[in-house]
Amino acid sequence: MDIKQYMNDLGMRARKASRAMAKADSASKNRALSLIAAAIRREAGALRAANELDLAAAKASGMDAAMLDRLSLSDKAIATMAQGLEQIVSLSDPIGEISNMKYRPSGIQVGQMRVPLGVIGIIYEARPNVTVDAAGLCIKSGNATILRGGSEAIHCNQALASLVKEGLAGAGLPADAVQIVATTDRAAVGELITMPQYVDVIVPRGGKGLIERLMREATVPMIKHLDGICHVYIDAKADLQKAIDVAFNAKCHRYGTCNTMETLLVAQSVAAQVLPALAKLYAEQQVELRCDPAAAAILNGYPYLANATEEDWSTEYLAPILAIKVVADMDEAITHINDYSSKHTEAIITEDYTLAMRFLREVDSASVMVNASTRFADGFEYGLGAEIGISNDKLHARGPVGLEGLTSLKYVVFGHGEIRQ
Amino acid sequence: MDIKQYMNDLGMRARKASRAMAKADSASKNRALSLIAAAIRREAGALRAANELDLAAAKASGMDAAMLDRLSLSDKAIATMAQGLEQIVSLSDPIGEISNMKYRPSGIQVGQMRVPLGVIGIIYEARPNVTVDAAGLCIKSGNATILRGGSEAIHCNQALASLVKEGLAGAGLPADAVQIVATTDRAAVGELITMPQYVDVIVPRGGKGLIERLMREATVPMIKHLDGICHVYIDAKADLQKAIDVAFNAKCHRYGTCNTMETLLVAQSVAAQVLPALAKLYAEQQVELRCDPAAAAILNGYPYLANATEEDWSTEYLAPILAIKVVADMDEAITHINDYSSKHTEAIITEDYTLAMRFLREVDSASVMVNASTRFADGFEYGLGAEIGISNDKLHARGPVGLEGLTSLKYVVFGHGEIRQ
Repeated sequence: MDIKQYMNDLGMRARKASRAMAKADSASKNRALSLIAAAIRREAGALRAANELDLAAAKASGMDAAMLDRLSLSDKAIATMAQGLEQIVSLSDPIGEISNMKYRPSGIQVGQMRVPLGVIGIIYEARPNVTVDAAGLCIKSGNATILRGGSEAIHCNQALASLVKEGLAGAGLPADAVQIVATTDRAAVGELITMPQYVDVIVPRGGKGLIERLMREATVPMIKHLDGICHVYIDAKADLQKAIDVAFNAKCHRYGTCNTMETLLVAQSVAAQVLPALAKLYAEQQVELRCDPAAAAILNGYPYLANATEEDWSTEYLAPILAIKVVADMDEAITHINDYSSKHTEAIITEDYTLAMRFLREVDSASVMVNASTRFADGFEYGLGAEIGISNDKLHARGPVGLEGLTSLKYVVFGHGEIRQ
Repeated sequence: MDIKQYMNDLGMRARKASRAMAKADSASKNRALSLIAAAIRREAGALRAANELDLAAAKASGMDAAMLDRLSLSDKAIATMAQGLEQIVSLSDPIGEISNMKYRPSGIQVGQMRVPLGVIGIIYEARPNVTVDAAGLCIKSGNATILRGGSEAIHCNQALASLVKEGLAGAGLPADAVQIVATTDRAAVGELITMPQYVDVIVPRGGKGLIERLMREATVPMIKHLDGICHVYIDAKADLQKAIDVAFNAKCHRYGTCNTMETLLVAQSVAAQVLPALAKLYAEQQVELRCDPAAAAILNGYPYLANATEEDWSTEYLAPILAIKVVADMDEAITHINDYSSKHTEAIITEDYTLAMRFLREVDSASVMVNASTRFADGFEYGLGAEIGISNDKLHARGPVGLEGLTSLKYVVFGHGEIRQ
């Protein structure tokens, strides 16, 4: 198999399909999504059988338990995939929406129309549910997509691909609107991320290693985040109960997510009050606390205490570990955040209006919060209805990315024969 | 001079200044702009003297008349620069605007705040007015900027740099918010476009050669357009007078601009009526018409007639030359446009409602117009109040880019101690 030729062919087909998808009406797109959902329910047995092949190979190659869990397709997971598509049906169609049509002194009327980006390349791990979710979001937003899932899910993804194509065809949409890379050769990824003539944007969903590799090699723009080094700052004027609730939730609700707090900053004047109370909760979860000297002095005797090193301030633990630093005031907290944060999500806990407003304005991250857990930085929690990924970049989409992040605005002009003077 | 070290130093200073600019209030930014305008008026004599040095060197090196004209700073040009800054003062400040704050079922309130991108690198030709215009737009939008103008304008740009720094300092803003590269070494551009740690976006303003070079080498994202191959399609249902007015204006209003029509498409059923009438006007301007066989047959005897080759459909003439093709209908026109257009600006001339709506939806360009000249694709004509450039890309800004294109939206959350369940 000539990978370069194969990917080039996929790209050409996707570009062609994207034109048809861009003008597809909402009813056709929704019908395709409903048909795919029905096909997934109907073929649950075949999907499980394909998944068994993948699981057997993955076990034989020594895949770890967490990855096996994500690869595995239970009956419940299959039902959830179908329901996910039906939820996408219920979202309003972003495409074709015209906004801000205003008359200009020349007589023309100018505004903007929301349109698809074109072709979206999605690169992800061996998680079959992502295949269906990503396909659904791209269909709804009028894009064509090329999906490259982890090679360990190849049988299951191919089975899903045929159901997606069946649904597209049933709704009169081009089957090439969703193509799943049929080779496990890693060179396919290298091609996908360097075909700007066919692919408008890459959305990588995976670990830091994958993203770093893509950042080095991609010539197609990406919607991505590398990591989430999120901070909570407990201010001198914090409501201490809110501070304890939020700081505990932001660390312990889930350890492995990118919006989990990794560093806690505490104002010096309240550190001696709030840290011991928090430590009681963290101790129950056996959270290791890596403290600067001031925090360590307060938490002397904590069973899982360690000294923070410079490296801790820029480490995403994804584990029951938390870095803690005592700061003089909010200015020191903001400086620390702007120096070390990955610009994902930061929160201040304070009852001080002026400081809250300054924190919102001055912290340069994708999500900035007052008196709320960083764990809320999520497309569903923000009301986007769906999430294709999270972006820490400032261009195009920033923060949780929903359907709108897969679209662009073009200018439209209604004229009456106007010419430029 | 160690160019790498020098540019790195500029980058670090810009990043630091960008933090102060991001939180600068509107009054300070406007005060800086007014002070710079006043300084430019006061130092008109010194600016002309610096410009004379540049002009003398440019003439000695054989610069052509058009470029000398753009390099030259007359009293009128100096007054226009100052007025331009005062117009930027009158624009509303986009930064800090909060929109769409909505309560979510969890109790948090979520919306978006408009914030600066950070550091903007601007690379342009030997045009001193761009130095002032770009500096003004970056100051107003709360960004720091590194300006790299054509080396032939170095004396004048350095003189302007000191006036800009005087104005920034007078308003209490960091002088490093606007830095002008002080070396004419081309390696400085290579550094500027590969420092993503210090520069958030590059805006190149120049010819196709410059943009192509930057596209090959830049690792920093760009807001750019490579060229403008703009189309007008005269439909079978066109009002023929509007068609003639628009098609003449779109070609002949100015030849050298990116929104000038380069290819005219005419529906077969009206070609024999509209083309001869248009040709009379084009003949007065000595416009060469490069025609497909059908158009050539109709325009037989036109004094500046030529046969179009395949290459003509993708050529930006920037000259009194126009490619003409007769098409069966709008579908053929759209296919031609989507195949050959540079996705800048396209117009349909028609009185048919359904076709007009389909054209708007189905043509994949940054600006799509009905019954108006492509020459309107411009930040001022669209009411943006200013224009930093034009983008043919779909990510981030698309079409004419005003102040908003130099900003980004971050999510802000107002909470009351909410935690994720």
